[in-house]
Amino acid sequence: GSAAAQTNVTVGGLVDVFAGSVQYSGEAGRRAVVNSGGMTTSWFGFKGNEDLGGGLKAEFALTGFFQGDTGASGRFGGDTLFSRDANVALAGGFGRVELGRGLAPNFLPTVLFNPFGDSFSFSPLVIHGNVPTFAADGSLRWGSTNAADTGWSNQIIYTTPKLGGLTANVHYQFGEQAGDTGINNVGINALYFNGPIGLTAFYHDAELRNPIPAVSATRQKTVMVGGSYDFKVVKAFATWQRNKNELATTGAEASTDKLYSLGLSAPVGNGNVLAAYANTKRDLVAAADTKRNTFSVGYDYFLSKRTDVYGVVMADKLEGFDRETSVGLGIRHRF
Amino acid sequence: GSAAAQTNVTVGGLVDVFAGSVQYSGEAGRRAVVNSGGMTTSWFGFKGNEDLGGGLKAEFALTGFFQGDTGASGRFGGDTLFSRDANVALAGGFGRVELGRGLAPNFLPTVLFNPFGDSFSFSPLVIHGNVPTFAADGSLRWGSTNAADTGWSNQIIYTTPKLGGLTANVHYQFGEQAGDTGINNVGINALYFNGPIGLTAFYHDAELRNPIPAVSATRQKTVMVGGSYDFKVVKAFATWQRNKNELATTGAEASTDKLYSLGLSAPVGNGNVLAAYANTKRDLVAAADTKRNTFSVGYDYFLSKRTDVYGVVMADKLEGFDRETSVGLGIRHRF
Amino acid sequence: GSAAAQTNVTVGGLVDVFAGSVQYSGEAGRRAVVNSGGMTTSWFGFKGNEDLGGGLKAEFALTGFFQGDTGASGRFGGDTLFSRDANVALAGGFGRVELGRGLAPNFLPTVLFNPFGDSFSFSPLVIHGNVPTFAADGSLRWGSTNAADTGWSNQIIYTTPKLGGLTANVHYQFGEQAGDTGINNVGINALYFNGPIGLTAFYHDAELRNPIPAVSATRQKTVMVGGSYDFKVVKAFATWQRNKNELATTGAEASTDKLYSLGLSAPVGNGNVLAAYANTKRDLVAAADTKRNTFSVGYDYFLSKRTDVYGVVMADKLEGFDRETSVGLGIRHRF
Repeated sequence: GSAAAQTNVTVGGLVDVFAGSVQYSGEAGRRAVVNSGGMTTSWFGFKGNEDLGGGLKAEFALTGFFQGDTGASGRFGGDTLFSRDANVALAGGFGRVELGRGLAPNFLPTVLFNPFGDSFSFSPLVIHGNVPTFAADGSLRWGSTNAADTGWSNQIIYTTPKLGGLTANVHYQFGEQAGDTGINNVGINALYFNGPIGLTAFYHDAELRNPIPAVSATRQKTVMVGGSYDFKVVKAFATWQRNKNELATTGAEASTDKLYSLGLSAPVGNGNVLAAYANTKRDLVAAADTKRNTFSVGYDYFLSKRTDVYGVVMADKLEGFDRETSVGLGIRHRF
Repeated sequence: GSAAAQTNVTVGGLVDVFAGSVQYSGEAGRRAVVNSGGMTTSWFGFKGNEDLGGGLKAEFALTGFFQGDTGASGRFGGDTLFSRDANVALAGGFGRVELGRGLAPNFLPTVLFNPFGDSFSFSPLVIHGNVPTFAADGSLRWGSTNAADTGWSNQIIYTTPKLGGLTANVHYQFGEQAGDTGINNVGINALYFNGPIGLTAFYHDAELRNPIPAVSATRQKTVMVGGSYDFKVVKAFATWQRNKNELATTGAEASTDKLYSLGLSAPVGNGNVLAAYANTKRDLVAAADTKRNTFSVGYDYFLSKRTDVYGVVMADKLEGFDRETSVGLGIRHRF
Repeated sequence: GSAAAQTNVTVGGLVDVFAGSVQYSGEAGRRAVVNSGGMTTSWFGFKGNEDLGGGLKAEFALTGFFQGDTGASGRFGGDTLFSRDANVALAGGFGRVELGRGLAPNFLPTVLFNPFGDSFSFSPLVIHGNVPTFAADGSLRWGSTNAADTGWSNQIIYTTPKLGGLTANVHYQFGEQAGDTGINNVGINALYFNGPIGLTAFYHDAELRNPIPAVSATRQKTVMVGGSYDFKVVKAFATWQRNKNELATTGAEASTDKLYSLGLSAPVGNGNVLAAYANTKRDLVAAADTKRNTFSVGYDYFLSKRTDVYGVVMADKLEGFDRETSVGLGIRHRF
């Protein structure tokens, strides 16, 4: 009960809520909404670290996503309380070892290499990669290109020391199946930042969906590369990835996605004009191929370092369905 | 991880637990209980604000109800983690605009104009208006007169600047139905405080129940007025409301409730003697009419500004059933 | 939103995650895991107290268990948000009265009198007493000897003042059954610490499982005694308990467990070597008797007062099944 104990932990988070009109291509109808996470998925939580001496540090993070429009825990039904982070780590000259739930290898390469960051509402790259859409009857209309979640449970992450702007992360997610250690997720990513240049790559070989403890019938092998360059008047982004899904039993190919994205961010006034495009070509072995392209443009105005307001328009086209436009006007506040 | 970051957020809440014996009229049997929320529904959460300069402020609140007797999240099964507040707002000379989950228009006029405040256990007005009771077979014995919840999700609230003691709130709750913007909740309330006088009114036109995302078959139109006067030796309260339920499809009347309440609060020693009465007349178009009256008397003793202990006795009578008496003895602590 | 308000509440908790290989005797198969709670069940929460003057204090605690490997709330599905504590109390010269959810009478005598404390993963005494295991088909393989949970909801606890090292707690848990006050849990425990000596005992008469609101068909009467002695080079622990289960309707005996445990903790380097053994003999009236014995040895190394790393090996043998070995290597961090 002492005030001094407070220095061991920081309470923080982000609330992002927007009003708008939303319809992805192939969805049943337009919805007028107040929704959460127009620019960043809302979250709250607890973090801290302790200096253990000799360059060694203990770190922990307990953070959870929530719906800023309803107060519901998580990103969807079945998500855990601390869906964003639930881990403990030791960091030192050797790098960093983390145990628990934390980032998947696909997360940072995706959100740091597109101008809309981790917007699960309006970033074309994130929407193609990580947001499923559904038809009127509830059936899946668009399956995310990344089969595994953006966060992995039951995971060990090893992070290298930073070497001249380069960091790499090795991820291993235990399947925790009785008598079967062959079901698991593995991945690696690398991030390089030097002056105006940013470069990234990731690879994962994944069979598990998290936090929902399901084992998939397919094993996915994904490779992605991305880059950014800051010309000062504008920052440019580009990514390319291939997601190959194989039947877990035989290894036979089930489907392959090829997804590329391009983006621009330009400082204008006390904010940034944002524009991004993503294009996916989906080859299905047992069904007709399909394509999707999505384009977003927005303006993000900073009232302070912690608070910004934004407006975004997005056009989304899934082959065989009408192009649909979504708009949102929101507030994002960090605490 | 810095201590300075703590100033961006306040952790707070209230724990209220009582031991007692509870039976509403028409319920199956008496229960000896340790229950939560004898005087105030227990809650916890995070709040903060940021001065943006020029009279503009950003504000957020993430607060959730919980059961102080079991630790369960929310007020009932299906309630969200941040069931009390999940919103972000901008406030300035123009008033205040809030996005997310927050108060319904019925909340403040109800809880500020009866002596038992927001007691969902012992306030006759709140019990008639917002607490359903159930028969032994689980069927609904008493449906709350207010069809919509005391908090609304997916909402925009506009609050006027305070003008000589008067504040008004305009509430719009999006239904978020695909292709149908006609399903929604709208409401307005006004609150006036000046010296010993308090006055209030609210109106809502509501079809949605929240946070459980159900669409009702009826549309409810409610009007309420209330007042209070502080004579110093005693503060008096009175309210009157009419809840009219119409079939959403045809607009035909389904039922109408007329509910009035009277209350007194008198400072005695280091606490207050509280007494309140509520009376509802329910006209049902397709079934026999019914009536309910409830009377509570209690003493709330303050050990400090933050901690009080209380004892309450309540008599409840639903037409056709025995009058039942409930008692509770509890502790309320704010943090 | 003031920083001063922070002094009313402390945010704290513990994250404990380990990597290992786990199989209890009689379980379907070995699992390679990253799991939570190798040494202590992970938890987070809020606590505070207020000095009311005259030696009187108000206290509250809202703390919840969580899974440090997935971020899931609680110890298992159905556990509440504040599954560890949700209570408010008044403490003074008379002792302490607590209302809400809090410790069961079995908790402190169990966790303070074995060297692995409250490890639900590796403490033989805790595993026999409080951790069920399941067969491949999901049926119960080992039912915990303690039928009631380690925390009780809807509870009043009276704690005596400390008298020369002795404290006693009286627990009463309301069943909250309509028209039936005979369904409840009652218990008492005593704890005595004086120099190198520790002594304990508890008794409970229990019919309710919490936080899952089920009423058991059996009423359990348990008596336990325990002791510890600190020889400095080693601290020794011993406990004995008998759990007798009777049909709630007739009082006829259904089964009786007799469980004893022995343990050692020896300071070695900047940590402790830990060893513990538990043995249960289960007499079933309507089925064949069974036996279980479990042995754990480990080393717990302290990097600081708040952070330790540990390694444990456990051998578990349930009659009729192979002896199985589990291992874990983990990090525990307090905040």
